[in-house]
Amino acid sequence: MATQSRDVRGMTAAPSTAAIILIGNELLSGKIRDENAFWLTGRLRTLGVSLRRVVVVPDEEGPIVEELRRCSSEFTHVFTSGGVGPTHDDVTLPCVAAAFGVELVVDPELERGLRQHLGDRITPGHLRMAAVPRGMTLIHGGAYLWPVMQIRNVFVLPGVPQIFRAKFDAIAEQFRGERFYLVSVDLDADEGSIAACLEAVERDHGVAVGSYPRIDREADYRVRVTLESRSRPAVEAAVQGLLDTLPTSARVVRVEPPAE
Amino acid sequence: MATQSRDVRGMTAAPSTAAIILIGNELLSGKIRDENAFWLTGRLRTLGVSLRRVVVVPDEEGPIVEELRRCSSEFTHVFTSGGVGPTHDDVTLPCVAAAFGVELVVDPELERGLRQHLGDRITPGHLRMAAVPRGMTLIHGGAYLWPVMQIRNVFVLPGVPQIFRAKFDAIAEQFRGERFYLVSVDLDADEGSIAACLEAVERDHGVAVGSYPRIDREADYRVRVTLESRSRPAVEAAVQGLLDTLPTSARVVRVEPPAE
Repeated sequence: MATQSRDVRGMTAAPSTAAIILIGNELLSGKIRDENAFWLTGRLRTLGVSLRRVVVVPDEEGPIVEELRRCSSEFTHVFTSGGVGPTHDDVTLPCVAAAFGVELVVDPELERGLRQHLGDRITPGHLRMAAVPRGMTLIHGGAYLWPVMQIRNVFVLPGVPQIFRAKFDAIAEQFRGERFYLVSVDLDADEGSIAACLEAVERDHGVAVGSYPRIDREADYRVRVTLESRSRPAVEAAVQGLLDTLPTSARVVRVEPPAE
Repeated sequence: MATQSRDVRGMTAAPSTAAIILIGNELLSGKIRDENAFWLTGRLRTLGVSLRRVVVVPDEEGPIVEELRRCSSEFTHVFTSGGVGPTHDDVTLPCVAAAFGVELVVDPELERGLRQHLGDRITPGHLRMAAVPRGMTLIHGGAYLWPVMQIRNVFVLPGVPQIFRAKFDAIAEQFRGERFYLVSVDLDADEGSIAACLEAVERDHGVAVGSYPRIDREADYRVRVTLESRSRPAVEAAVQGLLDTLPTSARVVRVEPPAE
């Protein structure tokens, strides 16, 4: 659906940025294909958050702590996925504690919830799940009992995709900012022949211009050019600028406003 | 297919490690879902290379140069994907030059190839593709004309998935090392109830033990336990140790040797 009926709000505060830290040997060994970063990338986009980094690290303290520190200081929001279950390879919470120099303490509310849920079946492994970094906020809501955990700008989410999605959706609205406006222009053109034109459009209109060649026969175009910005007038001017300056050898297959 | 007929070679040199750097705003904005890291993760696994890090960075010099330097010094092999085309957002080669403190020089062989291929259609954008870091080795082979580029332990691959795969496959054999041996044990069990048992198996047998709960109804098990190592006898002993020490409440759904 086109977006012509939408208003574009004026620029307010600096747009927020985000990083995703995926924690899990299973992703690096290829046992499991990432679903969470892929899904959250789309959600953040829709919310107007600029995702700046995705990193996959093993279940080891060194790389997890390092990424937590750097992402927390560099970006507005940090989301972690995985490593919060009851087994020895679930090390995210101790790593968050180490990254911020706080101790792990048993949260009475979490412990009570686990004991109610599990009854006689509770084990020391389960109780490890209730040991959280001091100062962590537990955010309840949405499906599933387990809370999202927040310390500073870091949100700790479980790795099971269904729970990851439900838990993010329960906290998503707080991240909503000015949305992106994107137009894609599909061309039958050699990418090199339009390179100078694209660079000029990006420079003259202050929008982000991307260029994505396709070499397979499934597509009816050879290059998809994307023009995007939080300013709709800037994108519209840039699209017009592009269409006006493309070399004659380039044929426009379609111009598409964003899907809603 | 089971692997019982395979010999396991003795340990030789330290197993090689790898990192993948995905370069591209289109991945961070959700325009395109990564195919290359996912595919290469599986290939590296088959080759016996231990993938230790995957990172997605934008088309910007700062984060690209930083990741190139850290991955190059920390891991045996580094593979980059994307950013080697003719447009302004293709910045991988200048970043490789900056990361290693060498200058960009036009490679006569690449320039000749581009001129032959493009004839009159050649543009300054195309010729930028021939400007490579001094000292870079061009590795020809496989489908498609464009070479893999190597400098030190960094291999620069194009982002278009078909070309990425063809180009990696053309150089893949040099990375082959001692293979991984993996057995998965699917259980109808609560993950917390087996946590102590898994930790003991990992400690006693020196194999990596993973634990992956499933909460959807598509699976006929609740937890998949994986046991892996480059030593097949160690994995076999660990599997037996696991089966001998599981709590009685855990039901074994299946024990599976690795797919070939």
